[in-house]
Amino acid sequence: MVQKLKIGIVGGTGYTGVELLRILAQHPHAELAAITSRKEAGMPVAQMFPSLRRVCDLAFTEPDKSDLKGCDVVFFATPHGVAMAQARELVDAGTKIVDLAADFRLQDPAEFERWYKMPHACPDLLAEAVYGLPEMNRDAIRGARIVGNPGCYPTTMQLGFLPLVEAGVVDTTLLVADCKSGVSGAGRKAEISTLFAEASDNFAAYGLPGHRHHPEVTQGLARAATGPLNLVFTPHLTPMIRGIFSTLYASRVRDVDVQALFESRYAGEPFVDVMPAGSAPDTRSVRASNMLRIAVANPKDSRLVRVLVVMDNLVKGAAGQAVQNMNLMCGLPETAGLTAVPVLP
Amino acid sequence: MVQKLKIGIVGGTGYTGVELLRILAQHPHAELAAITSRKEAGMPVAQMFPSLRRVCDLAFTEPDKSDLKGCDVVFFATPHGVAMAQARELVDAGTKIVDLAADFRLQDPAEFERWYKMPHACPDLLAEAVYGLPEMNRDAIRGARIVGNPGCYPTTMQLGFLPLVEAGVVDTTLLVADCKSGVSGAGRKAEISTLFAEASDNFAAYGLPGHRHHPEVTQGLARAATGPLNLVFTPHLTPMIRGIFSTLYASRVRDVDVQALFESRYAGEPFVDVMPAGSAPDTRSVRASNMLRIAVANPKDSRLVRVLVVMDNLVKGAAGQAVQNMNLMCGLPETAGLTAVPVLP
Amino acid sequence: MVQKLKIGIVGGTGYTGVELLRILAQHPHAELAAITSRKEAGMPVAQMFPSLRRVCDLAFTEPDKSDLKGCDVVFFATPHGVAMAQARELVDAGTKIVDLAADFRLQDPAEFERWYKMPHACPDLLAEAVYGLPEMNRDAIRGARIVGNPGCYPTTMQLGFLPLVEAGVVDTTLLVADCKSGVSGAGRKAEISTLFAEASDNFAAYGLPGHRHHPEVTQGLARAATGPLNLVFTPHLTPMIRGIFSTLYASRVRDVDVQALFESRYAGEPFVDVMPAGSAPDTRSVRASNMLRIAVANPKDSRLVRVLVVMDNLVKGAAGQAVQNMNLMCGLPETAGLTAVPVLP
Amino acid sequence: MVQKLKIGIVGGTGYTGVELLRILAQHPHAELAAITSRKEAGMPVAQMFPSLRRVCDLAFTEPDKSDLKGCDVVFFATPHGVAMAQARELVDAGTKIVDLAADFRLQDPAEFERWYKMPHACPDLLAEAVYGLPEMNRDAIRGARIVGNPGCYPTTMQLGFLPLVEAGVVDTTLLVADCKSGVSGAGRKAEISTLFAEASDNFAAYGLPGHRHHPEVTQGLARAATGPLNLVFTPHLTPMIRGIFSTLYASRVRDVDVQALFESRYAGEPFVDVMPAGSAPDTRSVRASNMLRIAVANPKDSRLVRVLVVMDNLVKGAAGQAVQNMNLMCGLPETAGLTAVPVLP
Repeated sequence: MVQKLKIGIVGGTGYTGVELLRILAQHPHAELAAITSRKEAGMPVAQMFPSLRRVCDLAFTEPDKSDLKGCDVVFFATPHGVAMAQARELVDAGTKIVDLAADFRLQDPAEFERWYKMPHACPDLLAEAVYGLPEMNRDAIRGARIVGNPGCYPTTMQLGFLPLVEAGVVDTTLLVADCKSGVSGAGRKAEISTLFAEASDNFAAYGLPGHRHHPEVTQGLARAATGPLNLVFTPHLTPMIRGIFSTLYASRVRDVDVQALFESRYAGEPFVDVMPAGSAPDTRSVRASNMLRIAVANPKDSRLVRVLVVMDNLVKGAAGQAVQNMNLMCGLPETAGLTAVPVLP
Repeated sequence: MVQKLKIGIVGGTGYTGVELLRILAQHPHAELAAITSRKEAGMPVAQMFPSLRRVCDLAFTEPDKSDLKGCDVVFFATPHGVAMAQARELVDAGTKIVDLAADFRLQDPAEFERWYKMPHACPDLLAEAVYGLPEMNRDAIRGARIVGNPGCYPTTMQLGFLPLVEAGVVDTTLLVADCKSGVSGAGRKAEISTLFAEASDNFAAYGLPGHRHHPEVTQGLARAATGPLNLVFTPHLTPMIRGIFSTLYASRVRDVDVQALFESRYAGEPFVDVMPAGSAPDTRSVRASNMLRIAVANPKDSRLVRVLVVMDNLVKGAAGQAVQNMNLMCGLPETAGLTAVPVLP
Repeated sequence: MVQKLKIGIVGGTGYTGVELLRILAQHPHAELAAITSRKEAGMPVAQMFPSLRRVCDLAFTEPDKSDLKGCDVVFFATPHGVAMAQARELVDAGTKIVDLAADFRLQDPAEFERWYKMPHACPDLLAEAVYGLPEMNRDAIRGARIVGNPGCYPTTMQLGFLPLVEAGVVDTTLLVADCKSGVSGAGRKAEISTLFAEASDNFAAYGLPGHRHHPEVTQGLARAATGPLNLVFTPHLTPMIRGIFSTLYASRVRDVDVQALFESRYAGEPFVDVMPAGSAPDTRSVRASNMLRIAVANPKDSRLVRVLVVMDNLVKGAAGQAVQNMNLMCGLPETAGLTAVPVLP
Repeated sequence: MVQKLKIGIVGGTGYTGVELLRILAQHPHAELAAITSRKEAGMPVAQMFPSLRRVCDLAFTEPDKSDLKGCDVVFFATPHGVAMAQARELVDAGTKIVDLAADFRLQDPAEFERWYKMPHACPDLLAEAVYGLPEMNRDAIRGARIVGNPGCYPTTMQLGFLPLVEAGVVDTTLLVADCKSGVSGAGRKAEISTLFAEASDNFAAYGLPGHRHHPEVTQGLARAATGPLNLVFTPHLTPMIRGIFSTLYASRVRDVDVQALFESRYAGEPFVDVMPAGSAPDTRSVRASNMLRIAVANPKDSRLVRVLVVMDNLVKGAAGQAVQNMNLMCGLPETAGLTAVPVLP
C-alpha cells in the first residue's frame, strides 16, 4: 500500500480552507496532519464546520506549535503575505508549498508590491515559484517546490482566452472579460457588503477602478501573445454561493474554426470540458467539482469571438486546483481525489 | 395646508433606519429634519443608500450637533441602551419618542436588566412608556410621550395568540411558536453568520437557549391570560431578505369557531388581515407593506389550534409600526404614509 | 376634482399584469375598470394575488364580456399577437392602447414577422404606433393612440448607448451589451428552466443564437447613428426576482468627457439617474421603482467606453414605463403614480 | 474483483433520477445499465444534465425497449403508480426493486387508495414489500425483493420521534412536526408555484388540509407506540434548493435524559448523527450527503421535548437512502457509494 502524503493547512477557517478539508478528506493518497488557526486554536474543526463531523477529528492548532515542517505538502489558505513569510523555512525542510493567496502569483516583485501594498519577502523564492495553472504550466509544476495557485477569475479568463491568443486569432489589444462571481469569492469575512440582506436578490458591479486579478491575467496571456495586450475586466457579484461565469469577447483578426481550435487545445485535459457548439453553459453544471467548462458562442454577423466559461470558484478556482497542483508536484495521478460529480440541482 | 411634523432619526445606517427613511419620504405629513450617525457623520444618506438618490438630500450628522430637540418626533433606530440615555432630555423638550430597540419594551426594569445585561437608565420614564402594539394598546399610544416599538417576532406572536388567549380558548401553559425570519432581522452588522455564503441555500435554528423576544411576548400575553402562561419559542433563519412567518400551535380547551373569533377580534383593523378559511399565507403577500396577515388552519382530528402569521419584519415588524405609532401619538390618520401595496413578485 | 381615467388591462395574470395593478392602484388619476383573463374569468384578482387584498376588489372577466371600449386606456399584458388583433376596434372607439408585448415595437412588419413567426395583423396601425421610450420619443408619445412599450433589455441598452451614438463618440459597428436579468423577466409561465431548483444558486447564458430584443435595439440606435450599426447582445439569467444589469462596451472614436455627456443628455429626466463618476450601481437601488440608473465607468488605459445600467425589469422595463407612457398620452404629469421609493434591502 | 451490480433506473429525468445517477456514478459496486424515459428517449443523459458530461454516456431509452429484467436492481424514480404496474414482471425475473415513489410505502391498500386516488395494482406484492427506513427495518430490508423508499418528510419525522415513542417518553396523542423543505422537494415539474420568481425571497405554508406523507409517518410511529397516535404536520416551502429542517415538539410524560436516549438509540448508525447538546443544526451541514443530523433542544421550564432534524431531501430523503437500501438488499457494505462529505458552503 502506498504511503499517504502528510498534509498541513495554514489558515483553515475560510472557505478555501474548509474546501481543502472536504476534498482532502476524500483523497486516496493524502492524510491531514495539521490545520492551523491562530484565532481558533483549540477548537475542533468539526465544531466550526459541522459538515465535517465524522470526517475530520483534528482541532485547529497554533501555527507555531504545528509540525508543518514534518508535512510533505503545506497549503496556505491565508491572507496575502503569510505564505511568503514562512516559505523559506518550509522549503528548506523539504516541504512543498501551494499558496492559495497571491504571494507567488505575480512574478515581478515590483508588480506584487504595487497591487498588494507590501514588499515581497523572498524574491528569490518567487523567482523559482511556478504559477499553478496546469493547462499552461504542467511540466513546470511537476518539478516545483512552490506553486502560486491562480486566482479564481484569472483561471477562467486565461483558459478562455489562451487558445485564441496562442493561435494569434484575435486582436490582443481589445480583450473584454465580463465576469460574474458567486459571493463565496469574497471569502468568509465579516463585512457588510456581502451580508445576505445586501447581496441577495441583487446584482452589482465592483472593483471597477482596477482589480488585483487583472495583472495576473495579463501576465499569463502576455506570455502567449506576440504583441501588446490590453484587457478590460469587469467583475460583478451575483447572488449565488459558488460559481464564476465569465463572458469573454475578442475581436477576430483572422478566420479560423474557433470551436475546433478550443477542442484541439484542450483535448485530453481532465478538467477542461469544451462543450459542443451551440451550448449555453451554466455554473451549476460544475458545482462542487473541479471541472471547468467552455462554450464558444460566436455571435452572428459580427467580427467578435465570444467565449463562455463556467467554473466553481472554490474548486477549480481555488482548493481543487491546489490539490491538482499537489498531485502533479508529488507524482500522483493528476485527478486523484478530484473526480466528484457536480452537484445538480 | 397642514404643517408637516419635523422628524429626527437617531442611528439611521441600519435596516430599520433606511426603512424609516423610505416610509417617511413618502409620508404626507412628515418632513425629515435630522438623521444622525456618529460613524458616518458628513456622508450624504443617498451615498450610503443610492436607492434614496433624489429622495433624501440629508447627510448624516453627529448626534451631539443635531437639533433633535427641535423635532416633533424622534425615532431611535439604535442598539439597545441608546434611547434610554437620551430620552429624558427629549421629552423634557416636548419631543415625542419612538424607540425601535428594546429600551421601552419590557416594563419591569429587573427583567430588562436580566435580558439586556445593563441597568435601565430611567425607570420612571419606562413606567410611563407605552408598548406600541396598536391592536392591543391603541388608546394608550395616542396619549404617550414615549413608545417602545415592539420586536418583530413578538408582533406576530402576540397578534396571533391574542384572540385565543383573550377569549380563554386555549391552554396558556402550552403555547408553541415556531417562527421563521428573513435575514434582515439580524440587522446590518458585519457578522459571519449572516453572510450570503453562510445564510443562503440554508435553513437554521438559533437562539435555542432563550431569545430576548421571549419575555416581551409573555409580558403581552400574560395581561390577557387568566392563568399562568408558558410559551415555547423557536426562532429560525430562512434565506430571504424580509419577512417573518410564525406558525403557532395551542391546545384548545373549549370549542369555538376560531375563524370567526379572529375575524371579529380584528374587524376594522387597518393593518391586520384575517384571511379566509383555507388560506395558506406566504410572506411575499406582505413584502414591503405594513400589513400583517393571519390564517387560521386548524388541523383535522386534533385538539390543537394552528394559526399562521406573515409580516414584513422591517415594516409592521419595525419601521412601519413605528410610523403607525407616530401617527397615533400625533393625531394623524393611523394609515398615513403606510398604504403602499405589497411588492409581488 | 379631476375625473379619473378608466383603465382596462387585458391579460392580468402575469407579472407585468400584477405589477400594473400594483402601480395603478396607487395612481392618483387612474381607476381600474376591467381586467381580463380568459382562463381565470370569475376569480377575484386578490385571490390569485393576496398582496392585492383590500387593494383591488375586481375579478378577472372574459375578454369578450369586458367593456374595454368604454375605457380611456387599455394595457395589453398579453403574449405577442393579442394586442394587434384587438387594436383597431379599440382605437376606433377612442380608447388609447399601450401594448407591453412586441406587436407595436418593430416598425417594419417584415422584421416583426421574421422574429415572431406571424404576419402583422394591422400594418397601418403599426405605421402610426409610437415606440414608447419617453427619453427618445416623448413628443411623439404625447400624441399617440397606440404605444408599443419597449422590452426590458432594450430599455437599458438604448438608454445606455444612446448618448454615445447620438454624439458620434463610439464605433457603432462594435457595440457589446452583456446583460443580466432577474428571473421574473421570463414571465409567469410554467416552465422547467425557470423553476427555483433550476435557476437558484446558478448563473446561465441563454438566447445565444439570437434574442428578439436584438432588432428592437438596433432599430432604436440606428436612427441615431450616422453609419452602420452592429451590436453583440448576450443575455444571462441571474438568480434574483427583479432587476436587469446591463454592462455595455463600445470603442471610442473620439475623446469626450463621457460622464458630462451622459449628465447633459439626461438632465431633467425624471426617471434616468446618471450617477456620479466612480459609482458602482446595483439592481436593488431601483427595486420596485421606475428609476433607471446609469454609471459611466471607463476602464483605465483602454480605448473602450464602459457604461453600467440598472433597472427594475417589471417597472421601468415594463409596467412602470407603460404607465409613464399613459401619463404622457393622457396629458397627466409624467411622474404621476410612479414616485415610489425603491425597496432596499 | 467483485462483479458490479447492473442497475436500471426508470424515469430518470427528475431530481431523484439525476441524483441517483450522481451517486451511482461514484458507487464502487454498481454499473448503470439502463435509464428510461418515454418522453426523452434517444437523448443522451448528459445533454439534459451537463453536470454528467464525462460521467454518464448513456442515453434515455423507451421503457419497453430497455432490458430492465436483465438488471440486478431497478430503481423507480417515477410518479406514483408506475412501479406497481411493472413490479411483478421484474421480481419474477429476479430483479430487486426500490421504488422512490409511494407505491410500496403504505402497507394498507385501502389507505393507499384513499390518498393516491387509485387502486393498488398488486396487493400481494405490497404485502411482502418492506418499508425502506434502515434505522427501523434493517433486517427486513436485507431480505426484501421490493423496498418502498420512504418519503423525505417522513424520514425526518420518524427518525426524530422514534426514540421518544419507542421509549414511551411522550404523549403520542400530541405530536407536532413543523417542517420546512427546499423547493427541489416539489420535483422537476413545470408548475407556477415553484418558479424562482414565486418561491424565492418567500416563505409559505402548503398542504394544510392534509399531506400524503402524514399517513406514512403515523403508520411508522404507530408500530412503536403503545397507545393512540395523533400527529399535526405542517409543511412549509423555504427558498433553498435542497434540505429539510423539521422542528418536532412533543409533550413529555416522564422524565428521562433525552439527549442520552437519542445517542443510545442511534449509536453505530452510519447515517444518523446525534449532535452534542446545545447544537443548533442547519441544513447545509448535510448538503449533498446521506447524513441526517438530530439535535435535542429542550426548552427551559417547559414540559415539551423539542427535537431538530436536518437532512438533504434528495439524498437521505430519496436517492441516497434508496442506494443505502440497495446496498442492504444486495449484501454490500451499507455505506458503499454514500460517503461523500457534505458540500459547505
